[in-house]
Parts: sequence; structure tokens; C-alpha cells
Amino acid sequence: MREPSLFFYRMRNIKLTLEYEGTRYNGWQRQRNTSDTIQEIAEKALFRVLQSKISLIACGRTDAGVHALQQTVNFKTNNPIPLNKLKKALNALLPEDIKVSAARLAPADFHSQYSCSSKTYCYTMLNRDHPDVFQRDRVYFYPHRLDFKAMRKASRFLIGKHDFSSFKRTESRGPKTHVRDIRSISLKKKNGFIYIEVTAKGFLYNMVRNIVGTLIEVGRGKMSIDDLPRILSARNRAVAGPTAPACGLCLVRVKY
Amino acid sequence: MREPSLFFYRMRNIKLTLEYEGTRYNGWQRQRNTSDTIQEIAEKALFRVLQSKISLIACGRTDAGVHALQQTVNFKTNNPIPLNKLKKALNALLPEDIKVSAARLAPADFHSQYSCSSKTYCYTMLNRDHPDVFQRDRVYFYPHRLDFKAMRKASRFLIGKHDFSSFKRTESRGPKTHVRDIRSISLKKKNGFIYIEVTAKGFLYNMVRNIVGTLIEVGRGKMSIDDLPRILSARNRAVAGPTAPACGLCLVRVKY
Repeated sequence: MREPSLFFYRMRNIKLTLEYEGTRYNGWQRQRNTSDTIQEIAEKALFRVLQSKISLIACGRTDAGVHALQQTVNFKTNNPIPLNKLKKALNALLPEDIKVSAARLAPADFHSQYSCSSKTYCYTMLNRDHPDVFQRDRVYFYPHRLDFKAMRKASRFLIGKHDFSSFKRTESRGPKTHVRDIRSISLKKKNGFIYIEVTAKGFLYNMVRNIVGTLIEVGRGKMSIDDLPRILSARNRAVAGPTAPACGLCLVRVKY
Repeated sequence: MREPSLFFYRMRNIKLTLEYEGTRYNGWQRQRNTSDTIQEIAEKALFRVLQSKISLIACGRTDAGVHALQQTVNFKTNNPIPLNKLKKALNALLPEDIKVSAARLAPADFHSQYSCSSKTYCYTMLNRDHPDVFQRDRVYFYPHRLDFKAMRKASRFLIGKHDFSSFKRTESRGPKTHVRDIRSISLKKKNGFIYIEVTAKGFLYNMVRNIVGTLIEVGRGKMSIDDLPRILSARNRAVAGPTAPACGLCLVRVKY
């Protein structure tokens, strides 16, 4: 008796939404020298469920220590497993800091990176005199005085289409162009927490963390609001502020 | 030359507000056979700062694994250290899951347990098909269907002064009376989370977790709303529901 061939089943393009706390991991992207990337762990779980090798395409390649509430990935398979069963099986295999929040059928031409119309990152700081015992790996604890209004004013210079070379990763040989288009930046403050949300279609590596590091310099009075246009036009990483720690950053929304 | 005597300084009654994530600890109260209680860790930090042995009086003795947003403790000392310095020094010594959120001077007769007029515990459940990656130690993940309205209706029978013997800890030789006065119980639901807040002047050991375990039985249809008066009047631990896991419980407010 022959096994029924998988080729009888139609090919599906499946979209998964992932949540993860990135603290323990070496970022999203699979790497040669380490196995503790979120991509590798997710692909291994998929292999165990589908019994075939899967390469995931992700909306955003989050860095080591960065979190996600809505990382979106897709892959194609002709395995006929129902989507609710796929989600359940993956969540049973995945570690407690990586979970699938949704599994949906996507159009054949859906591509989680190229089809993406905007991504929103939120950077969370805790600005009071003592750390939060419950969110210690999720926020950047900064106990010193910050001029929040100055930070907010400075952030407005970054909205729109600019060459963000001053905010790229130092060691980045990088993409052909450093021009990116920031659709919005919002700064909110609540109970000692500061939330900095940045939305764009695409970002340079470390761009949000370098922007936050620069806004912190403004908040603590080491840079002024008016320095921002100068920093942008310098196209020189050395003139902007330091890179804010990864623990405060989270990929929170993705639009298609 | 003589050292200045400490007796020149007046005795102060100091009130500390503590936040902790109880996951790693064996509860609040100091014990003979274990050193990982929150009381012992806090008293050791105080000893290092004040160079004298301190016994802390706590508002509520939280169980192993139970959290606190507003545990209130007090102690007397004639050490003249300013309160902001005391708070800072303690937070530098305490582990990342125990912090002092406030240090204040209290009246000489203030007693964090006896002066307390009410305590509020909040029990948090996550009722959806996948766990939360960020709050995995702080909520009780319960993926099965619950009749939230029935739970809320059932909870109303518990408000007021009752003999709560059915909700005491099984092995408890316990206090002289099991009569307690629940001032309020509120059940709220938001984004898959269920928050059960219970306010009283005092509680029996495990009382909130046993109430929550019983409400869950109602929610899943194993008990009915009308069972609640019968369970209360039985004064028998065996007739109520099981004890809900410690991870969902947090001491959130204390009033004096």
C-alpha cells in the first residue's frame, strides 16, 4: 500500500504572529555560530510539527534582547494541518518566552517583509528612583532626571524622509541608502514610564535605539533640541547619542 | 575620644513600602529551615545599612510565590540615616525582584499589621488560548472556557461577614475564629485577562486562592452559583474548590 502523497494537498501560504520576550535570545535571525536565535527555535518547532524543513520570512529582524508583541512571519507548506491545530502544537513545543498568538491563511503572494506597509516599535523607559520588580527585563530603568518636553520637541525633527546615517549601526556596511521615512514618533508618560513609539515602513539596524539614545541626551541636557537638525544633516554616527539598551525595545505593531 | 552614642538620636518608627515578585521566594515570613524568605532578605539588607538587627512587622504574610505591589512593613531604629538615603541604600543591596518603593516616618504607635484598616489582593488569570510571554510568572494561565458572568454572580455571596472555614488552608490549625469580613469583591475582564480583587481587613491563610479556585469551578460549570451559600454554611474545606496557584496572587493595596 502506498502512503498518500503530499502532492495531493494544495500549497498554502501561512502567516504566523509571534510574541516573544527577547531577553534570552540572540535576536531573530538565524546565525551560523549560535543556535539561540528565535528564528531557529521557531523553525525547529515547525519542523517537528510539519516534518519538513521550513524557512521563515519575518517582517522585522529584531536584535538580540529585543522583544516582539507582533512579529509577523510566513511560510509555504502543502501539509494540510488545520491552522488551530498548528498553533496549538507550536505553542506546546515552543519555550515559555516565545508563543504564537495567531495562525492565518495568507494570499499566495503575501510576503511578511515586502508586503509590510508599516512597523511600529515601542521603546519603554522607567524614569523614577527605583526599578519595577515585575518588568525588569522589559524596560530600560533610567533613574536620573529627564526633560520630557524637550525630548518630545526634539523628536519632531526626525519625522519624515531623511538620511538617517547618523543613526545607523556603527559597524554596519549596510544598505545602499540610509534614507528612511518616519511616519510618526510619539512620546507618552504614565506612572513613571516613558513610551517612545516610532512608526516607519523600514528602519536601519539599531535606528530606533540610536534615536532613543539621542533623545535621552536631550532629556538630560547634554544635547539641545536644536542639535537634532545638525545631527541629521551631519550623516555621521559619531555626532548622535549612544545606543539605548535592547531590553527597552519591542516590535509592537505591523501593518499590511 | 569617645564615639558619639546612638542614644543621642531619637527613636523613629519607619514605614517601608515593598514591591516584590514572589516567584523565587518561600513567602514573606522568616522560617527556620530556609533562608529564601522575603523577610529574611529584607532584614539582612537593613542590617547592612543600619548595622543593627531589625525585626520587620509586615501588614500581610504573603505565601510562597505570591507577589506584592504594596507590602507595608515597619521597624524602629535610632539610626539617624535620612529616609531617602535609606531607600537608596536598601535598593542597591536588594535583589532585582524585591525593591523599596517608599520609606516614610510613621507615628510612634503605627503598627503595619494592627493599624491596617484594609488589604486588597488581586488575583490575575489569563483566559485565552496561548500564554503571555511577558507576564508568565505573574498570572495564572487558564486556557479553558469560563462563564465569567456566573463567576461574578457567585462571588457576591461571599461579600460581608461570614465564617470562611470552607476557604481556610486544609492543614491549618489556625486562628480561634474563621469569621472574616469581605468588604468587596470585584471581577473585571480585559484583553483576555480576568482580575479578581478582594478587599478585607484580614484574611485566613489561602483564603483568596481558595475563593478563586471555587469561582473557577463555577466558571467551568462544575459548581453552580447557588452552591456558594451551601459551601459557606458547610464550614468544611472539602466542599469548596481547589486552591488556585500562587503565581496569580498579588497584594496590591493596603489602607491605614
